[in-house]
Amino acid sequence: MRQSQLFTKTRKEAPKDEVSKNAELLIRAGFIHKEMAGVYSFLPLGLRVLNNIVGIIREEMNEIGGQEISMTALQDKNLWQKTDRWDDDKMDVWFKTKLKNDSELGLAPTHEEPLTTIMKNFVASYRDLPKAVYQFQTKFRNEMRAKSGIIRGREFLMKDLYSFSRDQKEHDEFYQLAKAAYVRIFDRVGLGSVTYPTFALGGTFSKYSEEFQTICDAGEDIIYVDETKLVAVNKETLTPEVLADLGLNKKTLVEKKGVEVGNIFNLGNKFSKPLELFYVDDKGEKHDVIMGCYGIGPGRVMGTIVEVLSDAKGIVWPREVAPFEAHLIEMKGSEAVSAAAEKLYRDLNKKGITVLWDDRDTRAGEKFADADLIGIPYRIVISEKTMKENKFELKLRTEDEATLVDEATLFQKIQKTS
Amino acid sequence: MRQSQLFTKTRKEAPKDEVSKNAELLIRAGFIHKEMAGVYSFLPLGLRVLNNIVGIIREEMNEIGGQEISMTALQDKNLWQKTDRWDDDKMDVWFKTKLKNDSELGLAPTHEEPLTTIMKNFVASYRDLPKAVYQFQTKFRNEMRAKSGIIRGREFLMKDLYSFSRDQKEHDEFYQLAKAAYVRIFDRVGLGSVTYPTFALGGTFSKYSEEFQTICDAGEDIIYVDETKLVAVNKETLTPEVLADLGLNKKTLVEKKGVEVGNIFNLGNKFSKPLELFYVDDKGEKHDVIMGCYGIGPGRVMGTIVEVLSDAKGIVWPREVAPFEAHLIEMKGSEAVSAAAEKLYRDLNKKGITVLWDDRDTRAGEKFADADLIGIPYRIVISEKTMKENKFELKLRTEDEATLVDEATLFQKIQKTS
Repeated sequence: MRQSQLFTKTRKEAPKDEVSKNAELLIRAGFIHKEMAGVYSFLPLGLRVLNNIVGIIREEMNEIGGQEISMTALQDKNLWQKTDRWDDDKMDVWFKTKLKNDSELGLAPTHEEPLTTIMKNFVASYRDLPKAVYQFQTKFRNEMRAKSGIIRGREFLMKDLYSFSRDQKEHDEFYQLAKAAYVRIFDRVGLGSVTYPTFALGGTFSKYSEEFQTICDAGEDIIYVDETKLVAVNKETLTPEVLADLGLNKKTLVEKKGVEVGNIFNLGNKFSKPLELFYVDDKGEKHDVIMGCYGIGPGRVMGTIVEVLSDAKGIVWPREVAPFEAHLIEMKGSEAVSAAAEKLYRDLNKKGITVLWDDRDTRAGEKFADADLIGIPYRIVISEKTMKENKFELKLRTEDEATLVDEATLFQKIQKTS
Repeated sequence: MRQSQLFTKTRKEAPKDEVSKNAELLIRAGFIHKEMAGVYSFLPLGLRVLNNIVGIIREEMNEIGGQEISMTALQDKNLWQKTDRWDDDKMDVWFKTKLKNDSELGLAPTHEEPLTTIMKNFVASYRDLPKAVYQFQTKFRNEMRAKSGIIRGREFLMKDLYSFSRDQKEHDEFYQLAKAAYVRIFDRVGLGSVTYPTFALGGTFSKYSEEFQTICDAGEDIIYVDETKLVAVNKETLTPEVLADLGLNKKTLVEKKGVEVGNIFNLGNKFSKPLELFYVDDKGEKHDVIMGCYGIGPGRVMGTIVEVLSDAKGIVWPREVAPFEAHLIEMKGSEAVSAAAEKLYRDLNKKGITVLWDDRDTRAGEKFADADLIGIPYRIVISEKTMKENKFELKLRTEDEATLVDEATLFQKIQKTS
């Protein structure tokens, strides 16, 4: 895309009411717009990143047999009363609203109840299981505080997958598949090396739930990391008994702040029993369906990437999530420079490499500062100077020094490895 | 995808509380689930169709220079008070809710106010215009009645594009581009021949607004169609003066029911003036930005396709929006039949043709009835009988008779034309 046509612009100053690093940088770079605390719109560059993260998660969910659907925000009071989660003192993040006839509705903070109800239409026999169903859907949560930018929103996109199994063994097998998919997802978005499976408070149906915690100063959780075993324990569940149970030693644990970028819950029959989702086995006996739920917030992942990987100059996007892979900086000069820039732009596009082409009539310093702020992985400069040598200047966002390369080397360095 | 793995199933009876044909068929075929009146979840087959429609619209919006963003449902009261659209008697479809601190929020029924506010950050000079910005986003409208299935929802996906121009002439030029894109969209989704540009009530800033009305018994609008000139007039704006103005003759108009599948509004400075979105021209003078808005509801389009194109046996999807392009029916017999079905499934996938493979252990009659109900354009049958002749049975959903074809002919008939 030509940068001169992009409707957003960068800005030098962060908005005064913004205290989180991720929102400050993302607003300054033109990726998001703050509607109110915890409520952000995604502008073209931001939406591209969000969609890249969504694409990675979707691939991995399909890989483990997930089937994609899309449920609604508006929720029926009667349904949630069946599981005793309607009252605000049972679920304290509800936004409530009303139909014209005054009947109360809620805005879904999560979707166990409606999906369990949907599955009742399709699950009767043991032959109908196991199944895994997921969605990318906007959640609404009436959070008391919302000062972490897009890491904790009142309205935010969520990938929630739910598994439906015949027994605990079948559930456990899928759980391991889903956990492995989560490890791949956090690797692919560039957070793998600082993200730990973390034991957290369980619930009625299991000793622990499992969180994926990314080490990050902006994190709201305190976790204790065993850096040898590559696992962590959430402070809220850290007791001598738990340590003994997990075979961990308090002395080898390091206290860190973490962002919960994903979580997995064993739900047992917590929802299937009150909502009567059961199946009949091959002997004609009825059993409750065993459920699990697996969440990742793509916006929270995006905010965490900004918190963890940015530097003093701006954002540093890993290639797989970057809004564009290459930032082509044209130093306005002769028409020959423009023609060469346009040719390279087309050639890169032809190779399937996404390019933001800075064709603006702007000073070099401003172009470089914008490129650093926006954070695209490969920066390519074309100028009178580079053209004289029949070369391009190439710099990675993660490196300080640019190098002059010829066209063949440029394409070789920038080509996709997979 | 293997149909044995799809978690949805067809059902013989429509739910008793459903009165619209589109919802009846879509629920029976397992495409959608009704959460409450006017609120539907999209199941795997339904989401695939919806995404295909979204994909077509996105291509056409990008083609006319639209830049995609994603705004929020939650809205700030103060913003909408500036344009006098907060009060329920000014905008009668609001869903309202509250933060924990009791401040009132609304769920956006449309997005002129928040986008105009976003644009204020990026538009200052005549050099920053024109721009066109769009989104696919969930709208909430507190409709009194919602009995038209997914044609009129209380929560529904909407593509809304907004244009920002320097003057009326520039606006009019973009308006024509957008209108031409709409014509292409309705052609591609299979509604072109029954969809008419329709003059409707204007507003403060233009004599008329323009609707795209699809002729359909389920329509809530009455329109008068000139079948020679291929235009229509909405009954609500049909006066002798309007007819004279448009050069239409009452006698040549035919009264029809229509579904408003798209609309275009000239907004003038209705929003830019109160929200102070202006630009400075090359002489240093300030002008209000001239706006337009252009809506299409992908779910409404999907419901209209079902209303218009289905037959007594079920849904008939045009190829570009179908959940899969081919429905491969395997008549369970020898292992050789299964192996041949699997080979064809792989070969079609390799050619980029999407296939639902009915590998279920089910009676032939049930498989055919399901195929008709689901409405995939190409039905291919493999059985002992077809294998004996080294052929496949091919039937279009729009035709009654199947033909036996060899593999080369099958691929030739089913290949994409573009």
